[in-house]
Parts: sequence; C-alpha cells; structure tokens
Amino acid sequence: MTADLDARLGRWRKRVERELDGCLPPVTREPGRLHSAQRYSVLAPGKRVRPALVYATAETLGVPLERVDGAACAVELIHAYSLVHDDLPAMDDDDLRRGRPTCHRAFDEATAILAGDSLQALAFSVLAHHPHGPEPAVRMQLVATLADASGAAGMAGGQALDLAAEGRNLGLADLELIHALKTGALIRASVRMAALCAPGLDDAGREALERFAGAIGLAFQVQDDILDVEGDESLTGKPVGSDEARGLPTYPALAGLDGARRRVAGLTAEATAALATHGWEGSPLAGLAAWLLGRRH
Amino acid sequence: MTADLDARLGRWRKRVERELDGCLPPVTREPGRLHSAQRYSVLAPGKRVRPALVYATAETLGVPLERVDGAACAVELIHAYSLVHDDLPAMDDDDLRRGRPTCHRAFDEATAILAGDSLQALAFSVLAHHPHGPEPAVRMQLVATLADASGAAGMAGGQALDLAAEGRNLGLADLELIHALKTGALIRASVRMAALCAPGLDDAGREALERFAGAIGLAFQVQDDILDVEGDESLTGKPVGSDEARGLPTYPALAGLDGARRRVAGLTAEATAALATHGWEGSPLAGLAAWLLGRRH
Repeated sequence: MTADLDARLGRWRKRVERELDGCLPPVTREPGRLHSAQRYSVLAPGKRVRPALVYATAETLGVPLERVDGAACAVELIHAYSLVHDDLPAMDDDDLRRGRPTCHRAFDEATAILAGDSLQALAFSVLAHHPHGPEPAVRMQLVATLADASGAAGMAGGQALDLAAEGRNLGLADLELIHALKTGALIRASVRMAALCAPGLDDAGREALERFAGAIGLAFQVQDDILDVEGDESLTGKPVGSDEARGLPTYPALAGLDGARRRVAGLTAEATAALATHGWEGSPLAGLAAWLLGRRH
Repeated sequence: MTADLDARLGRWRKRVERELDGCLPPVTREPGRLHSAQRYSVLAPGKRVRPALVYATAETLGVPLERVDGAACAVELIHAYSLVHDDLPAMDDDDLRRGRPTCHRAFDEATAILAGDSLQALAFSVLAHHPHGPEPAVRMQLVATLADASGAAGMAGGQALDLAAEGRNLGLADLELIHALKTGALIRASVRMAALCAPGLDDAGREALERFAGAIGLAFQVQDDILDVEGDESLTGKPVGSDEARGLPTYPALAGLDGARRRVAGLTAEATAALATHGWEGSPLAGLAAWLLGRRH
C-alpha cells in the first residue's frame, strides 16, 4: 500500500467514524442498553471498506466529501446491522467477530435483533436528515439505491440463498450469484450512491463505474474466500478454513485456489479497464481497488 | 360501526392489500422461500389499522389516495416486519399469531429474521419508488418520518423498553412511555405521513392532527390491554389474560380496569377535541378513531 493511500484510508475511516458517532443515540438516553448495543456493533474496529468506496468515488469525481457523508454513514450502518443479524444463533451462530464477543453474546439475542433493526432504520434516517446531503431528488435516489441493495433483491436475499446453499452442491454461477447479492449489492451501492451525488457525471461515466463496482464487488468476496483458505488467522480474525468447515460454499472449493486467484486477477483487470475508459486509472478509486484486491486480511 | 365506515374500511383494506401484493416480490423468483415468508407475513389477514389511518387522514384533508398509497404500504410493511421479529423465540416466543403459525414456525428462524429485515428495506424502497407518491422533498420527509418512528427513538426502542420491563415494577408514566414508542410511534407516523402529503395544510391543522394522533396512539394500546383482560378470545385471537400471565406490564394491572377505561375515554375526548378545532368532527378520521377506540377485538 502506498503511503498516500494509507493516509487517505485513515482519513476516510476517521471521517466516517466521527459521522457514525454523531448519528448514533447516546447511551445515557433510554433505552440505554439498546443504544449501547448499537454503538458496540457499529463502532467496533473495522476496515470501513464501504464508506471508503463512497469517499474514493466522490474524490475521483470531484464531489465534496460532506455531500456524501450521509451515504458513507448509511451504508456502514446497513453493513453493521447485517453482521449483527448474521451472527445470531439462528443464522451463522458466531460467538466472536474480529476477536470480540458478537453483539448477542455481549448483550443478549433480543437486544441484538433490535439493535440490527434499529440500525437499519437509522441508515435511512441519516440519508433523509444529513444536513450536508444532496438535494431531495438525489437523496430519494440514494434511499432507493440503498433500500434495493439491502433487501430481498440484494443483501438479505443473498444471505437467504447462502443459508439455503449450506451443505448443498453449487455450481460456480450459483456461488457468484450469492456473492453478487450478499456482499456485491452493498459494494455496488457504495459506488453508485457517490456517483449519484455527482451532477456532472454523464451516462457513460456512470456505466463505467457500474462495471467497475460489479467487478470489484465479486472480486472482493472471492478474495475473502481465498483468505479464508490461506490467510493469516491473526490478520483475518477468524480460523483458517472456517467457511469450508461449516459447509459454506467458497470459491476455492469450487474452482481451486489457482482458479480463484485467476478469477480475482481477471476481475481486477476488468475493474481497471472500466476506470481507464474515463482516465480514472490513477484515481483514489483505482488505488483503493488495488489495495482491496491485493489485501492479506 | 356505521355502514358507511364499514364500507370505507373494506375499501381501504382492499386498496392497501392490492398495493402490498404489487410491491412484494413473486414467490417464483429466487430466493423463493424468503419471498414466501415475506408474503405469508404481510398478506396475513389483518385489520390494516395503520394504512386505514393514512387513508382516513388523506380523505379528511382532500388528498388523492394514490398520493398516499406508498405511505400506506410502507407503514404496513414496517408493522408486519415488527410482528415477525417480535414473535421470534428470543423476543416474545409466540407460536401463533391470529390462529396461524408465526413466521419462524411456518418457515424457520433464519428465514423469519431475513424476512423481517427485507420487509423493512422494502418499506423504504416503496416510499422512494412509488409512481404516484409526492414530489421528492415531501417523499424525503416521509422517509424521515417513517425511519424515525421505526428506530431506536420509536418502535424498536419501545420494544427494547418493553422487554426490559418484563417482571419489573413499572409506574403508569413508564408504561405510557413504552406504549407511546412501541405502538404510538407508528400510529403517529401514519397520520403525519398523510398530513405531509397535503400541501395546503397550515401549521395549526398539522398540530391538531399531531395532538389527535398522540391521543389515539396511546388510547389504542390501552384499549388493547383492556381487551387482553376482558376480550373475547375468538375475536382477539389470543388467550384472555396472556399479557399479564407473561409478566408484561399492562394498563389495567397498574390502573385497574375502570382506570384503564377512564383513560381511554379521556384520550378519546382529547382526540375528538383536537379534530373539532378544525371542523373535522364528522370526518372519516373521526369515524375511524371512534371505531378503533370502541372496538371489541
């Protein structure tokens, strides 16, 4: 990672964490336990990949960052709520996330369900209320984009397909569809929301960003699958091979480790080519993508 | 109930059910099980109280109903998701709702969690996309109103307080706060969303509707508590006394049955007086309120 990107990532992370802290209700207000669970889940250490994509797209397009602060915050709130619910006993049944007790272990199941539910509501509240967000017509498109990416045709639908796939034989196309929905939808929404905030962007530019986001959304997840097989537990925060051990479908299991690596390389080339059509090859977005797809954790 | 109101209620119910059916994804599309669970939960027989409040307010204010169809649909989707999650084993642990298996019993817990999550997303998607909804600036206010009413400062917060109250000694003020959030917030949002769609409404009119909605929101829940004690199980769909048996705080338990009845009467008078300040005493909204607060189930 270049020093420049490292500094940017740190700046974006700090920025969104300040925004998140500002929009979450204080623990001193009732119901304090619910607010604590919300804060515990959202403000846990994380890479803030989705907000970074929002900010990187905005910087690439010359959009002032305060215009997309609400979108960056909202997409991270949706991501955070999905982790809380995915960890529940009836779902993935995880006790730890990045070395800390999961929300339902640190609090209780009912609180975790309600924390997730209220974080989802907060995401839309932030899009609607953020003082520096775009004009109403664009805000409406942000709401539409985030809601569609989160629901049955996006993230929640992908999680449903993923659960249904446990222990079953899947083809690569099935697995790519699960990935495209479960993680890809929010990744695409992150780039798309920032692009919606750029009034001067033409249709060809918007389409290039869609192609870029589609490619890195899938590549990001395949890379995650690779790290699950060969990653360093101290960096990824979960035991090596844990997905496969649970009967979860992974890319390397279906295509082999080399096949998975080739797929990431191909998708990376696709993403880079999409950016190059608009002279964005040296942009903050290109730098972020290179880091995301080359990461070791 | 007058024949006129009966006909209106039936019309509003059919109208919102047609809208709901239209916005829910088909079960023939993947993930079919998730879509089935969404439809099972949303299209279950119900009174559609919240959509009726949206439509009654719109008719009272002369707002065309197609302008509020999205809001009527969205508030019912939020209500439906909250029932699915409230019924979960970690929450109220109910096997039956109105005589049918609850969502997690008819499907499974993971599907119920995801059905609720995706119904919440769908509510905001409908507000953003509905073809006959109001202009973007008003739509944004609808999103803000519904998100705030659903989250930690509204419905989800009320449910958290309610769970925390189980088995504890509460005062009447505590109980009224729980009711104001858990059910009151969405009732108030129903009236407020329709009022937001009436461009000609002045501040005094808006304030009168807020007072009205605050009063009936609380009265509706106290009436529910009364019906839990003295209601006819075949009409209410749940065993008499079930709330108190579970250690849930109820109004009659704290104020006595007569005290609860007096509170409903007082709140009804307050609601009626608020409507009268604007000549709305013979309006569809007044008729709906009289029915809601006089109902036996």
